[in-house]
Amino acid sequence: MAAFNPDLAFFSDNTAGVAPQLLAAIGAAGSGACKSYGDDPWTLKLDEAFSAWFGTPVKVFVVTTGTAANALALATLSPPYGCVYAHSGAHVVEDECGAVEFFSGGARLKLVPGAAGRMIPATLADCIEEQAVSVHSVQPAAVTLTQATELGTVYRPQDVAALSAVARRHGLKVHMDGARIANALAFLNCHPGDITWRAGVDVLSFGATKNGALAAEAVVFFDPTAARDFELRRKRAGHLLSKSRFAAAQLLAYLDSGVWLRNAQHANRLARRIGDAAGALLLQPVEANEVFLRLADARKDALRAAGFGFYDWGAAASGEARFVASWNQDEAGVQRLCEALSQHA
Amino acid sequence: MAAFNPDLAFFSDNTAGVAPQLLAAIGAAGSGACKSYGDDPWTLKLDEAFSAWFGTPVKVFVVTTGTAANALALATLSPPYGCVYAHSGAHVVEDECGAVEFFSGGARLKLVPGAAGRMIPATLADCIEEQAVSVHSVQPAAVTLTQATELGTVYRPQDVAALSAVARRHGLKVHMDGARIANALAFLNCHPGDITWRAGVDVLSFGATKNGALAAEAVVFFDPTAARDFELRRKRAGHLLSKSRFAAAQLLAYLDSGVWLRNAQHANRLARRIGDAAGALLLQPVEANEVFLRLADARKDALRAAGFGFYDWGAAASGEARFVASWNQDEAGVQRLCEALSQHA
Amino acid sequence: MAAFNPDLAFFSDNTAGVAPQLLAAIGAAGSGACKSYGDDPWTLKLDEAFSAWFGTPVKVFVVTTGTAANALALATLSPPYGCVYAHSGAHVVEDECGAVEFFSGGARLKLVPGAAGRMIPATLADCIEEQAVSVHSVQPAAVTLTQATELGTVYRPQDVAALSAVARRHGLKVHMDGARIANALAFLNCHPGDITWRAGVDVLSFGATKNGALAAEAVVFFDPTAARDFELRRKRAGHLLSKSRFAAAQLLAYLDSGVWLRNAQHANRLARRIGDAAGALLLQPVEANEVFLRLADARKDALRAAGFGFYDWGAAASGEARFVASWNQDEAGVQRLCEALSQHA
Amino acid sequence: MAAFNPDLAFFSDNTAGVAPQLLAAIGAAGSGACKSYGDDPWTLKLDEAFSAWFGTPVKVFVVTTGTAANALALATLSPPYGCVYAHSGAHVVEDECGAVEFFSGGARLKLVPGAAGRMIPATLADCIEEQAVSVHSVQPAAVTLTQATELGTVYRPQDVAALSAVARRHGLKVHMDGARIANALAFLNCHPGDITWRAGVDVLSFGATKNGALAAEAVVFFDPTAARDFELRRKRAGHLLSKSRFAAAQLLAYLDSGVWLRNAQHANRLARRIGDAAGALLLQPVEANEVFLRLADARKDALRAAGFGFYDWGAAASGEARFVASWNQDEAGVQRLCEALSQHA
Repeated sequence: MAAFNPDLAFFSDNTAGVAPQLLAAIGAAGSGACKSYGDDPWTLKLDEAFSAWFGTPVKVFVVTTGTAANALALATLSPPYGCVYAHSGAHVVEDECGAVEFFSGGARLKLVPGAAGRMIPATLADCIEEQAVSVHSVQPAAVTLTQATELGTVYRPQDVAALSAVARRHGLKVHMDGARIANALAFLNCHPGDITWRAGVDVLSFGATKNGALAAEAVVFFDPTAARDFELRRKRAGHLLSKSRFAAAQLLAYLDSGVWLRNAQHANRLARRIGDAAGALLLQPVEANEVFLRLADARKDALRAAGFGFYDWGAAASGEARFVASWNQDEAGVQRLCEALSQHA
Repeated sequence: MAAFNPDLAFFSDNTAGVAPQLLAAIGAAGSGACKSYGDDPWTLKLDEAFSAWFGTPVKVFVVTTGTAANALALATLSPPYGCVYAHSGAHVVEDECGAVEFFSGGARLKLVPGAAGRMIPATLADCIEEQAVSVHSVQPAAVTLTQATELGTVYRPQDVAALSAVARRHGLKVHMDGARIANALAFLNCHPGDITWRAGVDVLSFGATKNGALAAEAVVFFDPTAARDFELRRKRAGHLLSKSRFAAAQLLAYLDSGVWLRNAQHANRLARRIGDAAGALLLQPVEANEVFLRLADARKDALRAAGFGFYDWGAAASGEARFVASWNQDEAGVQRLCEALSQHA
Repeated sequence: MAAFNPDLAFFSDNTAGVAPQLLAAIGAAGSGACKSYGDDPWTLKLDEAFSAWFGTPVKVFVVTTGTAANALALATLSPPYGCVYAHSGAHVVEDECGAVEFFSGGARLKLVPGAAGRMIPATLADCIEEQAVSVHSVQPAAVTLTQATELGTVYRPQDVAALSAVARRHGLKVHMDGARIANALAFLNCHPGDITWRAGVDVLSFGATKNGALAAEAVVFFDPTAARDFELRRKRAGHLLSKSRFAAAQLLAYLDSGVWLRNAQHANRLARRIGDAAGALLLQPVEANEVFLRLADARKDALRAAGFGFYDWGAAASGEARFVASWNQDEAGVQRLCEALSQHA
Repeated sequence: MAAFNPDLAFFSDNTAGVAPQLLAAIGAAGSGACKSYGDDPWTLKLDEAFSAWFGTPVKVFVVTTGTAANALALATLSPPYGCVYAHSGAHVVEDECGAVEFFSGGARLKLVPGAAGRMIPATLADCIEEQAVSVHSVQPAAVTLTQATELGTVYRPQDVAALSAVARRHGLKVHMDGARIANALAFLNCHPGDITWRAGVDVLSFGATKNGALAAEAVVFFDPTAARDFELRRKRAGHLLSKSRFAAAQLLAYLDSGVWLRNAQHANRLARRIGDAAGALLLQPVEANEVFLRLADARKDALRAAGFGFYDWGAAASGEARFVASWNQDEAGVQRLCEALSQHA
């Protein structure tokens, strides 16, 4: 395998390091003593900071990974005999090694198909309604949406609202996997509330790690009913940090300084450049920071030989490839990628 | 409640911040891109670094909390219908909200009594043997030892070996909760292997967070049999870090630079000073960095009024109190505590 | 090992077969078709029959084993991070292979000591109160009482009420393991309500198998809140019988015909005869159908050589032995046992 | 709703009662005392009886429901982070309320499409191969086949062998849900070994309840490796019967007396009659004892008004209906159904 070239690495936004503002926040949280397990001044400010940011009172909890955020959140929304509707390509389905099943005590993911990584209301409704519900079946409990989706597309506020309405009508709760919510917001240029609580989302996994944090994700409860249940599940799962301040300090800096938006804008902009250069190779509209292309094997080989790093995507012989731009993606490297794609187009 | 005074805070070693060498290591791991999920140069060095440190080949995995380390490790050693023998005051028993039960799928902790926070071989053997084992009972699977113990005492190498021998004789695996293993080693002044693999330990939760790390613990497998099972359980539990490098970089710096030893020595020395000053108030020998005292309510009140922070311990009216010295505990604050304890003695 | 002699077998009341009235009820439920999964005429009558018997409206569910009844019931009363207080020698603790942990998703049993197999209110209160409850600890959720106890003693109505009052005061629910509730009622000669709902019990495992049924236990909800949760957990655990009528028909016959009382009276009377003959060997008062004796090894050997069957009890060298009288225990065999015990007294 | 007419009930084979030979066996197992928990003479004969029947040494365990048999068996074949491939319409998928997830600690069912209720090797292979397997994904562990299928079709020996070969090639174990295995054998007229161990099945859920037993299913291990694990899981799940003899006695009588075959032949024959009468309405070939028809709503209404009982099947507006013939299905009722279907044809 070729050496890893950071400037030409488009594997994933989790290959990037820590944003300087967040590293500074970690340093400022310092070496001195403060209360542990979230009773520190940083963590205690999170509810207020996120409430202000969202424009509604919220309860916020820190965890270190998106998998923990998603699975813990969903475990508060589904009983062990429940089922959770998710897009068939969702991260909780494909990339979390059954975490939802583990944290919930055995709930089931029900797969909802949909083009461009998105569920649409009619299909979601069909999936819910076609399931005969009796004591013999798992019980519909929640819907989880991914924003931005696993294919780099973005739900508009009205899309989220329409899916939430389907969920509500069937008595289901709504979770949003916002591992890339900053990228979605940067694309939509809307208020954070517009794609979350105003659109019917009950609990949000608010991702920051992919967009520049060290290992800091927030679980945001718009409805605080399940908050105590969450806290106990988090502790029991080993996800309550004794030195919570270092994650909290990052999240505060991330919101306060606008890092979230600038980082996402950078990544989105470079992804769009790649998409524009790719032309007819493009498989999905580029709305966030991911680009999906159809590439012949020879082209993949050539790109890799030139030092570019990216993942094959989809089924084995699909010829798909994914390129992700990070918050600090090298502009010159993107330029080289664009040229490489244009030449071969 | 009185304001939190960092210089007079003896609540826990998890109130301390991050050691400067480890903060520097985080900074050095940087903002550039590298492979994620543990395929980065830092994480890839862990096996070698820990193997050298322990003097035997080991497999090492990073997690962020001691609870995760303990419960994930024990889940690889016990089936769901197993039982794990632990000291009745162990952290896994008292302070992890049932994490062992959660991660193992419902294994049971069997409580072993013992003075000064320690199990002794005869009692462990009795506890194992007195249990009728049939298809109707949980199945003895593992023993977990805490080093240093929850009462700040330390198992000598021969103690660990004797307990391990009991475990082996009954077909049980041995886990060590080393949340404060550095403090134990600083006290014993022995080789890390002497209290672990040479003494029969199969898996170790190697703590660094309480001794200066941000959120970095290692699970060390001396027997690699269960390593793949561990990896999958870790991912499924949301404990595989995408940016693993920042925890790994800390652990490398922690071992390489001798931070582990110097930090532990500092904490132990100050705890001993407190213990010496406490005289007849002392409830347990001070071997690591914790001091347990019997204090009348009025004395506790006076100390707290003077700004000292510490926890009540044991049963409600036991009159016990715990003081913990951290890796960067303020020497002047300790001096003031010693004086306060001497005056009132 | 000696051959199994049915007339001299005092191993357990589960060695007995099926009472003729219940076998007849099975036969009468027949070979014809009826609705399955509990929508049959027999199962549909259970709520009414048990409500009449208890003198209060109840919801009743059939299962086939006491372990399923206990663990499913407790799973509806405790979250995965909860703890359930039980006597240290309770069946759920000693003889169910961790079923409570399995069904609840990892709840913990907290052991309450107590003489003669009984918890007393002060000790239960101490056990609940001595536990520091925070996000780091398991959360007290329920108490489970065994009636008659594992040592053949019986809680009086006021005992149950006092224990329930302690539970209520601390916000805990109350479960009763009534595997031998008929024996307890036969001893107390009181109304079934007096030791259950009138004394604060929320859910009862109503045993019939040990007292003459084939494999029929009822879970009785005095508070119907958790009934739907129970139904789904039961199905999911494979404990919803497609041919539910055969268990339900037994339970109806068991209540209607007074089989429950006559069978328990027979067993209790013979146990008392054994207890009277045992004199100073007796370790516990004989209140239900179990007799606990202290017997030298030579005496045990002699009894076994004479064909008597019984289990050693307690710790390995305790010299204890248990004799259980069944609903159809052979009177002549009991006479022989009484003579053997008297001769050797 | 119309009254339930037993002679015209085609809802399910679990609406039938107990076959007289099995009721006699229960009676013969009697009221006398014998050892409990499977150490009785009946249960102890099961291994030998099933080994003789299958023509290979097997270990056999009794449970009371098919759900328990399937989920316990699969829990021995898959780790919590495993996945189990099942036909998308399988009973474990649709009708067991997530039992596989519960018993396994959260394993995932992967749905394999296939016409006529059957998986075919190429599709199974595709499903296994299209899944990227890494530490981020669930791990392929087992395949479960249903024989006869949920659509009343039957896998031929070579079908089972070919599917097992795919499983083996990918390192997966093979489970068979044989809730209607007698019906499959009656159709195939082959040796029981031909569709099980000789065709690569590792563990079989051997159903008898639908074919005339009271509540008796056997789990048959052709590979005894997982047998002890099974025993402990069974106990822990409340599925070890204290009075095991009554289930075992049925199973012995079921095999010895040829009840299994005669009952299945009766049910299959009557299903074929219905299928023959249904002509063009038939949706699936009738191979076992189930008949799937396409019926307009008006025809369904007319049939129900005439007293016939059956379930709608498939999606809400699919117009499908299922008719099942039981081991003691009334011949005259079938004749009336055939006439009704012919008239309307």
